[in-house]
Amino acid sequence: MAAKQDPEALAAARPLLTDLYQVTMALGYWRAGRAHDPAEFELFFRQCPFGGSFALAAGLRDCVRFLRAFRLRDAGTPWPARRSPSLRPGGSPPRCSRPSPHGPLSPPPDVQFLASVLPPDTDPAFFQHLRALDSSGVTVRALPEGSLAFPGVPLLQVSGPLLLVQLLETPLLCLVSYASLVATNAARLRLIAGPEKRLLDLGLRRAQGPDGGLTASTYSYLGGFDGSSNVLAGQLRGVPVVGTLAHSFVTSFSGTEVPPDPMLAPAAGQGPRVDLTTCVEAWLERVCAHLGLGVQDPHPGERAAFVAYALAFPRAFQGLLDTYSVRRSGLPNFLAVALALGELGYQAVGVRLDSGDLLQQAQEIRGLFRTTAAQFQMPWLESVPIAVSNNIDEEELARLAQEGSEVNVIGIGTSMVTCPRQPSLGCVYKLVSVGGQPRMKLTEDPDKQTLPGSKAAFRLLGSDGSLLLDVLQLAEEPPPQAGQELRIWPRGARESCLVRPAQVEPLLHLWVQQGQLCKPLPSLAESRAFAQLSLSRLSPAHRRLEQPALYQVALSEKLQALVHRLRAGASL
Amino acid sequence: MAAKQDPEALAAARPLLTDLYQVTMALGYWRAGRAHDPAEFELFFRQCPFGGSFALAAGLRDCVRFLRAFRLRDAGTPWPARRSPSLRPGGSPPRCSRPSPHGPLSPPPDVQFLASVLPPDTDPAFFQHLRALDSSGVTVRALPEGSLAFPGVPLLQVSGPLLLVQLLETPLLCLVSYASLVATNAARLRLIAGPEKRLLDLGLRRAQGPDGGLTASTYSYLGGFDGSSNVLAGQLRGVPVVGTLAHSFVTSFSGTEVPPDPMLAPAAGQGPRVDLTTCVEAWLERVCAHLGLGVQDPHPGERAAFVAYALAFPRAFQGLLDTYSVRRSGLPNFLAVALALGELGYQAVGVRLDSGDLLQQAQEIRGLFRTTAAQFQMPWLESVPIAVSNNIDEEELARLAQEGSEVNVIGIGTSMVTCPRQPSLGCVYKLVSVGGQPRMKLTEDPDKQTLPGSKAAFRLLGSDGSLLLDVLQLAEEPPPQAGQELRIWPRGARESCLVRPAQVEPLLHLWVQQGQLCKPLPSLAESRAFAQLSLSRLSPAHRRLEQPALYQVALSEKLQALVHRLRAGASL
Repeated sequence: MAAKQDPEALAAARPLLTDLYQVTMALGYWRAGRAHDPAEFELFFRQCPFGGSFALAAGLRDCVRFLRAFRLRDAGTPWPARRSPSLRPGGSPPRCSRPSPHGPLSPPPDVQFLASVLPPDTDPAFFQHLRALDSSGVTVRALPEGSLAFPGVPLLQVSGPLLLVQLLETPLLCLVSYASLVATNAARLRLIAGPEKRLLDLGLRRAQGPDGGLTASTYSYLGGFDGSSNVLAGQLRGVPVVGTLAHSFVTSFSGTEVPPDPMLAPAAGQGPRVDLTTCVEAWLERVCAHLGLGVQDPHPGERAAFVAYALAFPRAFQGLLDTYSVRRSGLPNFLAVALALGELGYQAVGVRLDSGDLLQQAQEIRGLFRTTAAQFQMPWLESVPIAVSNNIDEEELARLAQEGSEVNVIGIGTSMVTCPRQPSLGCVYKLVSVGGQPRMKLTEDPDKQTLPGSKAAFRLLGSDGSLLLDVLQLAEEPPPQAGQELRIWPRGARESCLVRPAQVEPLLHLWVQQGQLCKPLPSLAESRAFAQLSLSRLSPAHRRLEQPALYQVALSEKLQALVHRLRAGASL
Repeated sequence: MAAKQDPEALAAARPLLTDLYQVTMALGYWRAGRAHDPAEFELFFRQCPFGGSFALAAGLRDCVRFLRAFRLRDAGTPWPARRSPSLRPGGSPPRCSRPSPHGPLSPPPDVQFLASVLPPDTDPAFFQHLRALDSSGVTVRALPEGSLAFPGVPLLQVSGPLLLVQLLETPLLCLVSYASLVATNAARLRLIAGPEKRLLDLGLRRAQGPDGGLTASTYSYLGGFDGSSNVLAGQLRGVPVVGTLAHSFVTSFSGTEVPPDPMLAPAAGQGPRVDLTTCVEAWLERVCAHLGLGVQDPHPGERAAFVAYALAFPRAFQGLLDTYSVRRSGLPNFLAVALALGELGYQAVGVRLDSGDLLQQAQEIRGLFRTTAAQFQMPWLESVPIAVSNNIDEEELARLAQEGSEVNVIGIGTSMVTCPRQPSLGCVYKLVSVGGQPRMKLTEDPDKQTLPGSKAAFRLLGSDGSLLLDVLQLAEEPPPQAGQELRIWPRGARESCLVRPAQVEPLLHLWVQQGQLCKPLPSLAESRAFAQLSLSRLSPAHRRLEQPALYQVALSEKLQALVHRLRAGASL
């Protein structure tokens, strides 16, 4: 069975990570003889997140991984490995609606669990049908990851047997919505920060669930961040990982500790090893004199922690400055260690601030770096990167990225991963055709009406390559032609209009056909580059983060006519 | 290896689900000869979420599961099962800082990945140390799940070898913060809804990452919800699962479909089988006449969908009313099917509304249920439960739960799982002692200062059993005694005061000692009941959701003195 061979698939989504109503509907379709009816669903959002005018499409790689591993576990196919009874603490057996025949120590297999929550007289043939399900009948068209996405334009089109593609709804929504939200959030933060600042995701501990952390780190990188603190995202997804030290490392030292080996060889490898501790104490005197401080001012535990870190990472020494007092302790201790290392040919790689006015402190620290560099003739010290963190949101980021800021590296946690301005993209997955016939939800709430029919989507561009608008049309219509006039119905408008695109790009690519991947997915780094390219083609009025111009999505005449026909047919 | 035997542990958190700085600090500790120094960390939050005065502690069961499976994978120990190369689509190999010797198709094992991101000249003995790590040296005291938790009072105390307990920081924060946030959110929603309404978590598709959905469903149940749509939460955690049908099921039917078997036997099992379709059409005429509608008004596809669902679930028929028009289509179609079933002795179990003014529609529908029940002498129809969903938040819930509301079941998605009022609890994990010596972070930001020392925590109660306040004291102090006067320092106050508790409860229980579970964890349902009991003991002034009275946390005299001494020692 595929799922048991892919620990990542296990971690990301499994077939039962779904709403129960998908299963009850599956039984309904099956009972109605409609399990195999060919159906198509579209996954899209209705409104751009964060008050902006765009989103970035993301999550496709997780959908593909999920689909390829899709298979319900049966009683004969155990968990990837039988859990040992000792692993589940007593008293917390999983409980389900009826007593599990699988003992209190392991959860029931998928099919047996579903049987336990469906009516007891459910036809056993239905479970046979479930057992045989895999993604071999599923076809997926989708926006490439990193594409700009707009309201109503499908991020995914999923077609296949009705029962199966219905079952896929919740996991696909789960995998696409948050990934796209995070990528969009990262793209906004990148637009605010500009291209030069290094942006780091530090949000793992603030993530909504462990896998939320992995998803956030993966797709914040796709959206334009430079790296993440999340080691698992490095291991599983190839995201560049970063990290140095926390306050606990600093407070764990009192200054009385004796390093077992305080000796350090010069960076070039030649010359005698030097006692770094002694060397740092000597530099401390010079630094304190230069800064006008007493040598008793800097905290000895903080200095011992810095020395310990420098001994472990002489080529990557970084100081966390605000455990005690930045000005009187963190900074002189850092400088003493950095200069001692400098004498040995090592260059410190940075300092980090995690409290207070980050912009102002960065200015002061840069000033002191400059005078100290000049005083001790260590010119590299001038440009040691200054990293900051501490509840940074869009507003604070704008301040830190302003002209003349001395901040080089910005770590963002909570507002990166939880997207507090809008914590959900609100994607939906709607049936648009079944048995070749278009379907439409005609609820009295006009915002919740859907666009019927199997569709194609195109992006129309001007002669300068900038985006004009997106057009949705029926799949059977010929694509719009560059240079030819086209009549369209902008969504929400009462009248049609004409547009003459200089270029036309099809938006939805065929990725999975009958369960087979048709072409390689781009790497995460390629999708990241594509996202930045996509954003660069958006006009400034649309790219603006506050009160942007709305990007237009339009319907072809035929699609518009179909909507009218179905509405009229249902009006009573 | 333990991890490979526990698919749930795999799904929840793995050792590398951590910030890289935990690993770089580990190397720093190791290089400083301090890997085995006995250390203690506390996990707590600084402010109650959502502007309330309480939180619920949750996530301990996931921490225990994580700890017991904690082990870094080494090159010799493969993934739970070797992934097959065909499972990873071409073009998206994981990339890490240096080329992986493990081929492009499988991620490097934990230890090898860490080696790839640490300096190339790192002492191999450090990796030997990592290979041998497990939780056998770790001791955990914690608030029982479902306990009330207040700012600064540890949810978890984790002690063990410095290097190891430092490494645990991020995953433990990940597992506790969101679980506690969700449980607290659910508890607030339960307080608003009152004890009678059924509250259901429908948020899986809006969750921030797949595991976010599993965590949310588990801990919303702990916090007071009645069930979840999330099948996986039922399978793995025993959460009661619920679900019926979506709009796509309804729109998938046009009315021209012919059910392969429209025959249904009476509920009692005796008597001839009846053609439900024919029966429903006959009832439709009577219902439409009663409601003053034409028989052409109700959508035939919607009715076909209801019939299909009723054939699959005759004992659990529920109608989703708002795919077309509630009043003119959904309701008459539901009534026709429900009454046809009623004739056969089956009682419909509910209707659901997912758009529009839910409260007002529920009133109207209840009214029509009553007149229809009387008209056709089907008294059970009067009390068919009315379920509602659609972006329900605290304000809308209060409206739906008001006196006289006819809503019985309330499904909450986005605002349950994403906790939009505050999407992160902001827990921290701070070093309080190392080598038996108290440690304190003395940053210039007073909000970020920590309380030093290994501590005990007690809840003081009045003679009526109501909560007075929590006291933190040093672990070596004797516990407060019921009936005896105690001098305490309320946090933030400049003066001490006296309190005489009628009862005293120790807050932190020993769960894991040297890696062994000491006593069974309560079941999820037991923790759920404990949460409701805990809330009932909180005074109304503290339980109030808006502008509540702040619950006091105080320090013992000795702890207060220690804080003063350490502050004075560091003041420069």
